Amino acid sequence: MVYVTRKVHFNAAHRMYNPTWSKEKNQSVFGPCSNENWHGHNYELEVTVCGEPDPDTGYVIDLRLLNHLIEEKILNKVDHRNLNLDVDFMQGIIPSSENLAIAIWKELAPHITPPAFLYSIRLFETPRNFVEYKGETYIITKQD
Amino acid sequence: MVYVTRKVHFNAAHRMYNPTWSKEKNQSVFGPCSNENWHGHNYELEVTVCGEPDPDTGYVIDLRLLNHLIEEKILNKVDHRNLNLDVDFMQGIIPSSENLAIAIWKELAPHITPPAFLYSIRLFETPRNFVEYKGETYIITKQD
Amino acid sequence: MVYVTRKVHFNAAHRMYNPTWSKEKNQSVFGPCSNENWHGHNYELEVTVCGEPDPDTGYVIDLRLLNHLIEEKILNKVDHRNLNLDVDFMQGIIPSSENLAIAIWKELAPHITPPAFLYSIRLFETPRNFVEYKGETYIITKQD
Amino acid sequence: MVYVTRKVHFNAAHRMYNPTWSKEKNQSVFGPCSNENWHGHNYELEVTVCGEPDPDTGYVIDLRLLNHLIEEKILNKVDHRNLNLDVDFMQGIIPSSENLAIAIWKELAPHITPPAFLYSIRLFETPRNFVEYKGETYIITKQD
Amino acid sequence: MVYVTRKVHFNAAHRMYNPTWSKEKNQSVFGPCSNENWHGHNYELEVTVCGEPDPDTGYVIDLRLLNHLIEEKILNKVDHRNLNLDVDFMQGIIPSSENLAIAIWKELAPHITPPAFLYSIRLFETPRNFVEYKGETYIITKQD
Amino acid sequence: MVYVTRKVHFNAAHRMYNPTWSKEKNQSVFGPCSNENWHGHNYELEVTVCGEPDPDTGYVIDLRLLNHLIEEKILNKVDHRNLNLDVDFMQGIIPSSENLAIAIWKELAPHITPPAFLYSIRLFETPRNFVEYKGETYIITKQD
Repeated sequence: MVYVTRKVHFNAAHRMYNPTWSKEKNQSVFGPCSNENWHGHNYELEVTVCGEPDPDTGYVIDLRLLNHLIEEKILNKVDHRNLNLDVDFMQGIIPSSENLAIAIWKELAPHITPPAFLYSIRLFETPRNFVEYKGETYIITKQD
Repeated sequence: MVYVTRKVHFNAAHRMYNPTWSKEKNQSVFGPCSNENWHGHNYELEVTVCGEPDPDTGYVIDLRLLNHLIEEKILNKVDHRNLNLDVDFMQGIIPSSENLAIAIWKELAPHITPPAFLYSIRLFETPRNFVEYKGETYIITKQD
Repeated sequence: MVYVTRKVHFNAAHRMYNPTWSKEKNQSVFGPCSNENWHGHNYELEVTVCGEPDPDTGYVIDLRLLNHLIEEKILNKVDHRNLNLDVDFMQGIIPSSENLAIAIWKELAPHITPPAFLYSIRLFETPRNFVEYKGETYIITKQD
Repeated sequence: MVYVTRKVHFNAAHRMYNPTWSKEKNQSVFGPCSNENWHGHNYELEVTVCGEPDPDTGYVIDLRLLNHLIEEKILNKVDHRNLNLDVDFMQGIIPSSENLAIAIWKELAPHITPPAFLYSIRLFETPRNFVEYKGETYIITKQD
Repeated sequence: MVYVTRKVHFNAAHRMYNPTWSKEKNQSVFGPCSNENWHGHNYELEVTVCGEPDPDTGYVIDLRLLNHLIEEKILNKVDHRNLNLDVDFMQGIIPSSENLAIAIWKELAPHITPPAFLYSIRLFETPRNFVEYKGETYIITKQD
Repeated sequence: MVYVTRKVHFNAAHRMYNPTWSKEKNQSVFGPCSNENWHGHNYELEVTVCGEPDPDTGYVIDLRLLNHLIEEKILNKVDHRNLNLDVDFMQGIIPSSENLAIAIWKELAPHITPPAFLYSIRLFETPRNFVEYKGETYIITKQD
C-alpha cells in the first residue's frame, strides 16, 4: 500500500463566530479571530489517498484526476470566498480548521472509490498552525 | 553598508474594489478578487534596513527594536483585520499588494532614523505573488 | 478525531558528549557534533494534540492556550540557551534530538488534559534531520 | 520508540511509459508525463528509521551512517540519471513515484538492522505531489 | 515604482553538452550534468515586472495577465519537455540555467509593454542553485 | 550579465558579547543573545557571483568549483564550531550576522576572479532574520 498526496492552495476570508453566543462572549473566546469585519488566510490543503499501485500505470490514482476532483468539489467553492457566507458545505458550521478539514473529507470521500481510499485531509491555516483528519470517529487509548 | 531584513507574518481579509466603478466593472476587472463577501491572505512582510554596522554592537539596527516598531506601527493594525475597513493608513486606498507595500513604507520610514535607512518593503500576498517597494518615485530607463 | 499541530521555533547551543567516555571516544563517536566549544541549531518544534472538536468552538484545543503552554514549559527554558548546561529538564541527558523530543513530551504531557491528548512531538534539528516521538514504549513488529 | 528522518535530494529524468502499450495509449493515459524526449524532477527523499535511542549515544541511528547508506545505495545510482534507462533497481519497472518509493524501500531495508527498523520512504516528485511507502502489503479496512 | 513578481513552476529534462566538443571533453567539463541519458529538474521561475501602480486598479500589472503570458510563451513550451530537443527558443543554446534565463527574458520582454517593464528573470534549477538576469549587457565596475 | 547563486548550510554556536563592556552592559544591550553558555543557529549562506556566461559552457562559474571554494574557505572553518572561539577569520570581531557576512565576503572575494565577480553575501541567521553585504563601503543617498 502506498499513500499518495496532492497539495493545493486556496485563500479565503472567515471569522470565528458562534451565533448562539453574545458578541461579547464571541470576542472573549475567539479574540481577534472573531473580528466582525473578517480576516483571512492562504490555506494549504493536502489530500492523501492510499491503495496499491496499478500494475499497468504504476499509479495508485492519476494525480490529474485527483486534482480535478479537488478543484471541482473544493477549490471552486472556497477559493477567494468567505467560509462563513459563501460555501454551501460549511453552512451552519463554525469555520475552524478542524471543522473545515472534516467538511472537506465529507465532500471528497464519496468520490474516491476502490481500489483507492481517502486516507487523510491535512489543512494548513498558516505555516505554523495545521490540522489533520483521517475519518476516525473514536479516541484511541493512549499509553502514557 | 549591510542590508538587514526582518520577516514577519500577518493575516487579513480584503477585496479589490474601486468605489468609483459599478459592481459589474469591479467584477469584470478584478474577477474573484472582488468577491463582495471578502477573501483573505496570510501575508509575509520583509522589512529591509541598511547602514553601517555599529562598531560596539555589530548591529546595523537591533532587530528586537525593528521588530517592536513593525509590531506597533503595522501588525497591531493589520493582523486579523479587514484591509478595506479596519486599517487607518489604508483608508481610501485600493488594497492591492502594491498599494499596501507603499503604505507600509510610509508608516515605517519616519521611524527609521540615521545611521540606519529604510531600504525595502517586500510583501508576499501568496507564496507565488509578491511585490517590493524601495521608495523610488521614478522609472529607471531600461536597456533592452 | 482531529490532530491539531502548533509549530514553534527556538535556537540553542549543544554538544554531543557522553561524560562516562574519554574525550577521544566522544570525538570518535560523535565527530564534529562533539566540538568542545559547542555548536548550535535553529530548532523547529511541532506539537500535535488530538481530540474531538468542541461543538461550541470548533476547536480541539485553543491554539493560543497551547502556544502559551509551549512558551511557558519549553521555549522559556531552551530558547537562546545551552541544552547541556542551562535546561533543567535535560540535566544528565545527552542532548540528541531523540532525547530532547522525549524530554519535551514529558514536560508537556501532564498539562494537556482530556478531552485533548498529546499525540506527537516532532523536532527538526535542521531542515534535513528530524525526529518524532509519540509516547510509544514498545517496538511494533514490522512486516518485511 | 522514536522515529528519525533524514531528508536528501536528487534530480533525475524519467518518462511514464508502459512498453506493452502502443505509443497512442501511452500518450492518452500519461499525457505530457509520457513525452518521448523525457522530462525530469528535483526529488526530495525522506527516509525514516525507528527504534529506541541508545543509552550511550542518545541516537536511534547515527545519521551520518544513515546518510552514507542512502548515498551508496540510492543517490549514487539515481542522481543526475535517467530512471528508465540508467538505474539497475528500476529495470522493468514503470518509474512512477509510487514504484520508485517501493524500490527504494527494497534497496534500503536489508541494510537497516535491529535495533533500528526502516519505517517509511517518503518521496516528493514536486513540492505538491508526494508519496509514502511503509512496507505495508495489505489494505487496512477504513471506517467511513 | 513597485516591483511585482509572479513565481511559476515547471519541470524538464536536459543535459549539459557542447556539440563542438568530444564526448570525453563534455564528460570532463560537465561531469554527471552531461549524462547522455539526460537528467532533469523542477524549475521555479520568478518573473519580475516594475512600474507605477495604476490609480484605478492599484496594480502595476494584472497578475492574471502576466500569468497567462508566462504560460503561453514559456510554460507551454518547456513544461514536461526536454530543453535540448523540444524547445524552439533554446535551439542551438547550451541549456545552462544562465542561458535559459536569458532566453526566457528574450521571449517575454517584447510582450511586457509600458507602463510596465520587465525587470528580472530569476530561475531556480534546485532550491540551492539559482540565477538571475536583468537584461544587463555590461559589467559594472565593482569596488573592492 | 547574469547573477549566479549557490546556497549552503552550516550550524554554529555564538554569543553576542563586547569584551570592552561589563557583563551587565552586555546583558542589557544584547539580552538573551548574550547568554554566557552560548546559543546557536542553522545558518543559510547564499553566495552570488556575477559575470557573462562563457560561450563554451553556458556557465558564469562552474557551481561545483564555487561550492568547493565555499567549503574550503568557509564551511570547514565554521560548521559545527563556535564563532567566537573557533574561527580564525572572526578573531576579535563581534559575531553579529552583519559582521559575519562582511568577514565571509573578505575570505571569498580574493578567490573569485574575472571574468566572474563576487556580487553578494546573503546570510540567514534564522528564516526570519537575514542580512546581505555587497562590498559597498558608502551610504547611497536615499530619496524619501
